[in-house]
Amino acid sequence: MIAPALRDEIARRYGTPAIVIDLDRVARNIARLQAACDAAGVANRPHIKTHKSPVLARMQIEAGARGVTCQKLGEAEVMARAGIDDILVSYNLIGSHAVGRLGHLLRESPARITVAADNPVTVAGLAEAAAAGGRRLDVVVECDTGRKRAGVETPGEAVALARDIAARPGLAFAGLLLYPPAGGVAAAQAFLDAAQAGLAAHGLQARIVSTGGTPNLPEIGQVRGTTEHRAGTVIFNDRMMMAAGVAALEECALAVLTRVVSRAGEARGILDAGSKTLTSDTGGGLDGFGLLPDHPGARIAGFAEEHGFLDLAACADRPPVGTLVEVVPNHVCVVVNMVDAFVAVRDGAVVGTIPIEARGLIT
Amino acid sequence: MIAPALRDEIARRYGTPAIVIDLDRVARNIARLQAACDAAGVANRPHIKTHKSPVLARMQIEAGARGVTCQKLGEAEVMARAGIDDILVSYNLIGSHAVGRLGHLLRESPARITVAADNPVTVAGLAEAAAAGGRRLDVVVECDTGRKRAGVETPGEAVALARDIAARPGLAFAGLLLYPPAGGVAAAQAFLDAAQAGLAAHGLQARIVSTGGTPNLPEIGQVRGTTEHRAGTVIFNDRMMMAAGVAALEECALAVLTRVVSRAGEARGILDAGSKTLTSDTGGGLDGFGLLPDHPGARIAGFAEEHGFLDLAACADRPPVGTLVEVVPNHVCVVVNMVDAFVAVRDGAVVGTIPIEARGLIT
Repeated sequence: MIAPALRDEIARRYGTPAIVIDLDRVARNIARLQAACDAAGVANRPHIKTHKSPVLARMQIEAGARGVTCQKLGEAEVMARAGIDDILVSYNLIGSHAVGRLGHLLRESPARITVAADNPVTVAGLAEAAAAGGRRLDVVVECDTGRKRAGVETPGEAVALARDIAARPGLAFAGLLLYPPAGGVAAAQAFLDAAQAGLAAHGLQARIVSTGGTPNLPEIGQVRGTTEHRAGTVIFNDRMMMAAGVAALEECALAVLTRVVSRAGEARGILDAGSKTLTSDTGGGLDGFGLLPDHPGARIAGFAEEHGFLDLAACADRPPVGTLVEVVPNHVCVVVNMVDAFVAVRDGAVVGTIPIEARGLIT
Repeated sequence: MIAPALRDEIARRYGTPAIVIDLDRVARNIARLQAACDAAGVANRPHIKTHKSPVLARMQIEAGARGVTCQKLGEAEVMARAGIDDILVSYNLIGSHAVGRLGHLLRESPARITVAADNPVTVAGLAEAAAAGGRRLDVVVECDTGRKRAGVETPGEAVALARDIAARPGLAFAGLLLYPPAGGVAAAQAFLDAAQAGLAAHGLQARIVSTGGTPNLPEIGQVRGTTEHRAGTVIFNDRMMMAAGVAALEECALAVLTRVVSRAGEARGILDAGSKTLTSDTGGGLDGFGLLPDHPGARIAGFAEEHGFLDLAACADRPPVGTLVEVVPNHVCVVVNMVDAFVAVRDGAVVGTIPIEARGLIT
């Protein structure tokens, strides 16, 4: 992704390791997601957990996205402050701290805010937030159709929770939030159809039917009734998306530029990127902790916190100490979260840094 | 570690998840490390990669530490700015960015600075930094006695690199840096004895012989000739140190306070701490991604970025939605690096937050 001359310039200006994004590739990935949503006739609501940057969210909005998805309230606060005007928080917000902040956000921000819930405890808190915020809060019911994460597990529970929401002053039942595993269209459809029938029987309607995921890109809109899709990783892609068959290496728009800082063993190199940069995420069981496109025989076999252990046994061209090496991470979303800024390149030149404003906002 | 009433207060004031440290336990752990070093007659140079906080470094210095160890230049810059006056960087610093910053640090800070190297490329850059800094730079040779990370692999290479250092204007050969695996005293001793003989034959002497590691606490000073020890994790301890037999649960001074935000499945809970809080670090192959002292049957079976998957199948007392749960991380050093501040408690009360100033400083 990063030409050799550019590697030298990045290392000289910013040091290593550096989290580098190629804005040309980013723009193409944004356009690709938008085109996939347009073709399917569903709104695009990209998940900003991947980039955590209002600058990149703005690029997505300008390309046609209806709004953004956030996983944490802190991310939503950052996006609202940056003027993003349509925000979905796809997460159960619970506890007086979150409720108070959500109320404040509703009061102070003009943004349309929608929040997910999968249980009555969450719903009760959202009603408090709406009251404090002085305006109606749209709530979608999170439904689990096979992932076994959060989300009510039956259409009946979805209907019951929708009725609870609709009955609360200040809350509006807005729809259903799904996150089907790739290949899970049939199960999602069955759940959705049953839930919609149940809602109709109580005079309710799901205005929003939101699906999610980058691995599901080829399936956008295949669940009939889908109104919007939330995809995060596609803006950068990574080794996991390559393994899932939804991205080519040339569509990976983020690389970690790292340096070989030790070659004390004949078949061993040490990179200056360890688990505090690339993270220990295996990308769902991939072999090694990242892809080295320029050194196909090399493998990141393990980590210390600031050391990447490079196994060079099968590497014909073993990089000497000082070599700059590009790594495509296993899972890009967690790597972005490790640092405060991207180094951005465009058209083969460094354009500067882009702050990762919502980095580390775990609450 | 955190009493129930205190959990409520922390959640109310700071939200969840929160990285909580118990300053009473921290103080005891600091004292324990200092006592172990004192008993062995070696200087204490704690590794601040674990806490990344000048406030905690100052506590270590006040308890008797000679100085601190840093793994990255950015950490050293933070410590120097905070007035810590004796800093070892136990890492190969390479490239014009690092060399320029190191030169600047030498020029602007009154701190004693020592840097490690395991190869001539590093040494050449350190000489440039010393020239730019206008003062002598002490360099220790990093030696590998079995860990197979960075570090020259033979005493002969150590001597050759020491001579290279000694021959460079502006650099002083200061000694040897070891990081023996626990149980590796004999191998380290053999390496050290041979290296010291070789050094003597060339009129050189290792003024510093630095060992490292928390699992090695029981072995401090057992390598004859050791002058100082670098231990990081012991200030907080974690599940990995418990597994290594060097810490009891009552010596774990950091816990992640997290909340059950979903119980959509009968035997499944979802915590609001996922891989962006607790990290995917397995702690060297531990079962599950953290210890839940109050829910012995519960197991953190996996992560999404903001979801911890709690397997409650074997849990007699299944926590309902909203429950605050304390988690002792697998590996505390990487968890600290995820956020900007600790929530600190002392004597059963919240005392406020402590900034993690060197968080995310990967260069």
